[in-house]
Amino acid sequence: MACERRCLSTGALVGLGLMATLCGIGVGPGDPELITLKGWRRLQQATVIAFPAGLQGRRGIAEEIIAPYKQPQQIYLPLEFPYVLEPDILERAWQKAADQVYAYLTQGRDVVFVSEGDVSFYSTFSYLAAALQNLDSQIAIEVIPGVCSPLAAAASLGVPLTLGSDRLAIVPGMYHGDDLARVWAWAEVVVFMKVRSVYGQVWHWLKEQNLLEQAAVVSWATTPKQQIYTPLTNYPELTLPYFSLLILWKQRPILQNFSRA
Amino acid sequence: MACERRCLSTGALVGLGLMATLCGIGVGPGDPELITLKGWRRLQQATVIAFPAGLQGRRGIAEEIIAPYKQPQQIYLPLEFPYVLEPDILERAWQKAADQVYAYLTQGRDVVFVSEGDVSFYSTFSYLAAALQNLDSQIAIEVIPGVCSPLAAAASLGVPLTLGSDRLAIVPGMYHGDDLARVWAWAEVVVFMKVRSVYGQVWHWLKEQNLLEQAAVVSWATTPKQQIYTPLTNYPELTLPYFSLLILWKQRPILQNFSRA
Repeated sequence: MACERRCLSTGALVGLGLMATLCGIGVGPGDPELITLKGWRRLQQATVIAFPAGLQGRRGIAEEIIAPYKQPQQIYLPLEFPYVLEPDILERAWQKAADQVYAYLTQGRDVVFVSEGDVSFYSTFSYLAAALQNLDSQIAIEVIPGVCSPLAAAASLGVPLTLGSDRLAIVPGMYHGDDLARVWAWAEVVVFMKVRSVYGQVWHWLKEQNLLEQAAVVSWATTPKQQIYTPLTNYPELTLPYFSLLILWKQRPILQNFSRA
Repeated sequence: MACERRCLSTGALVGLGLMATLCGIGVGPGDPELITLKGWRRLQQATVIAFPAGLQGRRGIAEEIIAPYKQPQQIYLPLEFPYVLEPDILERAWQKAADQVYAYLTQGRDVVFVSEGDVSFYSTFSYLAAALQNLDSQIAIEVIPGVCSPLAAAASLGVPLTLGSDRLAIVPGMYHGDDLARVWAWAEVVVFMKVRSVYGQVWHWLKEQNLLEQAAVVSWATTPKQQIYTPLTNYPELTLPYFSLLILWKQRPILQNFSRA
């Protein structure tokens, strides 16, 4: 088991007084109670808690989710990950964040990094972990999975995301007309992540294909800010927050079930 | 929020002494600590805990996962869901299970149904919930999401499942040669669920495409029985358990990172 191998390796390093562990924890989609018991326990034990810094002085999402569990003696380490696409700027940010985490690890202090959703699913944690491993290939890294947003959105809608032999496609954003047709030819269920910037385009495609009644948008799933829009017939335009996704199902019966939710 | 609407509706029904709530809880992929705090709390409060019965007198998977949390006064309700594909047999089983759950609900006793992984992700819970709603459209159903196996497998491997603009395809089984080529033309990452019965066929396709080094198989992720096979070059044949999945990545760097795990 990769995780256990790493933990043993950490144990040996710590025994030599050399190195602590970086543990990535997926803290779930928004509701603080949707963290796992394991993630919560590791959070309680943590000396240093790192997370993506919020924008404009506000709390970051992961920081917000774990706020109820904060303990006074814990060190909070906000890390800057700019919202840009330029590889140079991003790589410098990951490198700087890795240096900050590495400073604690070399002092023998364990660091946990918390990420909204799951740490292996489109998470900044992966870039941080890679930058740290480039810095020092002996670093012990552990990963605790979490609930990702498509599952949370389906739960909030009260419908199955997938059933039986459904093929599921997850499209993370930046998609275009041809992509929509290609994925729809292949999948029974499609999740369009971060749909905000392309919602209008997707809505028109759904209308052309007569699929508006088989789709739902969920923003901020499981949080007090949660919004649900379905069917999409009456929503040609929506001003959506960043954490919004659209789910499209091929089979109508699922939405018949949904309409009773 | 669908869940809250339902809870209010339940509250009203319970106030009238009529009906309790069915709550589906995704208890995670195998490690009992990977249940969510919310799922764990609802489990503690439950009067009746339903789950898919195990085969040949053995404990079911979800029952096994929640065993550490069992309390003496709780009623355990194993429900029979046969492992067959015949729609008639399945529908009779779902109907019978719904009748059993309904009997408790009409007594005002809340029932939780526990499912390994997540309840919206290829789960028997969806069929039970649909059968209950057919029986009585007023039934209040709540859903608590959980960690699904692809996320758990990625965590065990110590690699990101998806990054950046990766398109993710999840194929639930029963796939054929053409399906492999079609999904690979579309996605950057593919998860083949329940790969046991088609492993040999998938292995040969991966070999033809020169993809064996970019794939990993994980069985029983996060449990003491966990097994990891990667790269697949040396595994043309594998006798795998039911809970085995294969992950295939388009980008080699991810697996270079993985090899350091």
